[in-house]
Amino acid sequence: MAITYRQAGVDIDSGEALVDRIKPLALRTRIPEVVADIGGFAGLCSVPSDIDEPLLVSGTDGVGTKLKVAFATGQHGTIGQDLVAMCVNDIVTCGARPLFFLDYFASGRLNIDVAHAVISGISDGCVLGECALLGGETAEMPGMYAEDEYDLAGFAVGVVSKKAVLGPHRVRNTDRLLGVASSGLHSNGYSLARRVLEQEMKHGWSDRIAGLDATLGDVLLTPTRIYTRAIRQLKQAVGDGLHALAHITGGGVTDNLPRVLPKGTKAQVRMPEMPAIFRVIQQGGPVELNEMRRTFNLGVGLAIALDARCWDAAIEALTAAGETVFPLGQVVSEPSNGEPYVEFI
Amino acid sequence: MAITYRQAGVDIDSGEALVDRIKPLALRTRIPEVVADIGGFAGLCSVPSDIDEPLLVSGTDGVGTKLKVAFATGQHGTIGQDLVAMCVNDIVTCGARPLFFLDYFASGRLNIDVAHAVISGISDGCVLGECALLGGETAEMPGMYAEDEYDLAGFAVGVVSKKAVLGPHRVRNTDRLLGVASSGLHSNGYSLARRVLEQEMKHGWSDRIAGLDATLGDVLLTPTRIYTRAIRQLKQAVGDGLHALAHITGGGVTDNLPRVLPKGTKAQVRMPEMPAIFRVIQQGGPVELNEMRRTFNLGVGLAIALDARCWDAAIEALTAAGETVFPLGQVVSEPSNGEPYVEFI
Repeated sequence: MAITYRQAGVDIDSGEALVDRIKPLALRTRIPEVVADIGGFAGLCSVPSDIDEPLLVSGTDGVGTKLKVAFATGQHGTIGQDLVAMCVNDIVTCGARPLFFLDYFASGRLNIDVAHAVISGISDGCVLGECALLGGETAEMPGMYAEDEYDLAGFAVGVVSKKAVLGPHRVRNTDRLLGVASSGLHSNGYSLARRVLEQEMKHGWSDRIAGLDATLGDVLLTPTRIYTRAIRQLKQAVGDGLHALAHITGGGVTDNLPRVLPKGTKAQVRMPEMPAIFRVIQQGGPVELNEMRRTFNLGVGLAIALDARCWDAAIEALTAAGETVFPLGQVVSEPSNGEPYVEFI
Repeated sequence: MAITYRQAGVDIDSGEALVDRIKPLALRTRIPEVVADIGGFAGLCSVPSDIDEPLLVSGTDGVGTKLKVAFATGQHGTIGQDLVAMCVNDIVTCGARPLFFLDYFASGRLNIDVAHAVISGISDGCVLGECALLGGETAEMPGMYAEDEYDLAGFAVGVVSKKAVLGPHRVRNTDRLLGVASSGLHSNGYSLARRVLEQEMKHGWSDRIAGLDATLGDVLLTPTRIYTRAIRQLKQAVGDGLHALAHITGGGVTDNLPRVLPKGTKAQVRMPEMPAIFRVIQQGGPVELNEMRRTFNLGVGLAIALDARCWDAAIEALTAAGETVFPLGQVVSEPSNGEPYVEFI
């Protein structure tokens, strides 16, 4: 009896059926730059012609073990938004306008319904992120993943004029720091969060904990906020007064904010009140405050370095875009002229 | 006793040590377009200014369960080249010049030496692929992967002038088809190959099989050929006479060649003699010939549709670039005007 690829665990027909179901999910994210009528093996996208000295900005990321919460709860509809957020927030912090996104979805045995739910979330994320879902790879790898598990990787590309790149080269020792609220843990620190909540506190994902307004699973699966629109409107409002944006991911404010500070400066930061889910984790561990600060965003999704004169306009623009903002601190000189760092006050 | 992120299975310091070891691997792949002096959260690359109406071409892929052979043999030095090849070969078949590559490396517990070996291979692949290793993500996800296993995803971006995009819109029903040799299985069909070799034939990876010039493990880990240089030299030699390139991946010649054929045509193909490793798998299964043809490349890494007048020049250019080429067939009219297909003769 002859052996087939399907018997070896790879079902090409099933993969092709998924491709058909993904097409409308990609179509709804299309931007005018997407070229759809030529080419075959790759996605094509034109470079916007109105950008002087265009630079391509790219980033890749995954969502870490937030996936484990999706597996445990069977909720796969928003983890795709997390994936887009992790990549797109990184490129918009450079000042880029997002262009397109590609995803890699890998599982041991392809479950079309789960894959479709995940990619629907990716499509939602691309709409929020203002980028086209231009391509992707769905890999079926027998024996590589546990039953009903999968991994995700995302790739985003955007474009920015060379003169408009944001970053430490623009930041001054008189800048003020504005914080933009996160929606929760975003997609970082889940191995520590799960260790504390599941193993130390013996919680289940359907538990309701005092202070949280949903089940623990729902709180942990809250999708990562995507800041494309907010940053676009902020740039329109304050122009060159916007100096740098730090996307607060793994490493927290402690490690991410210094990435946009020039040498010879430090950030003096007063963190906002810790949102309830972080307090639960901190006390449940217990986890030391410094460890919390270098593992979680603690409510700060973005840190923005601004010319102090743009303060009010920035708050107005971000609030109008639907964001919650708060004073985070200021940039000051550090006479030692060493590597920049954060001083929590 | 307080709990740390490290105790939860994520070692940020170890990740940072890896980043330091990766830096020289990225540096050796740098191309003039890479912008390294500004920005922080993402990789920056300029768009070459000498390309009229530039289109960005992107692709993402993994290496499937070829990984399982790397795990079993402990040889991690070339799987990175496979990853780059799978992505870059897809974009060069559109006519694009590669610009940059990003990788996603995910494991349960980060093994710095294994990660470094893998990323060294990625760096080698980027040199061969003529693109910069511009960024990457190393994810440590406790509980997601078996001990000593990992997954890889890659992402490549290139650029092509809108007028120079290759594909079915250029192919004529008088074109000839030239084949370029693969180096082995490349990175497709490993689940079937492993099923046959390990389960049906009871082979180990250190076995030597008659007709193969190395151990089974070494034959299966032969890195995927990267065709960037060959295609660049082919374009220089034959210009507009080059109509389309099909990268033969999962689906084999059966499914990949029709992707570059226009409606109302079919390809008449005479496959080259099957290289030894494929004969071993075919007989060892047994696996039916049609299943072999839609699972493996069977020795054909690239299929090229050419104006017949460029035939000799194409052979000369590809041979000079170090490729092995052979006549594969021709494109002919198919009066039914249905979807294009391959007729094996």
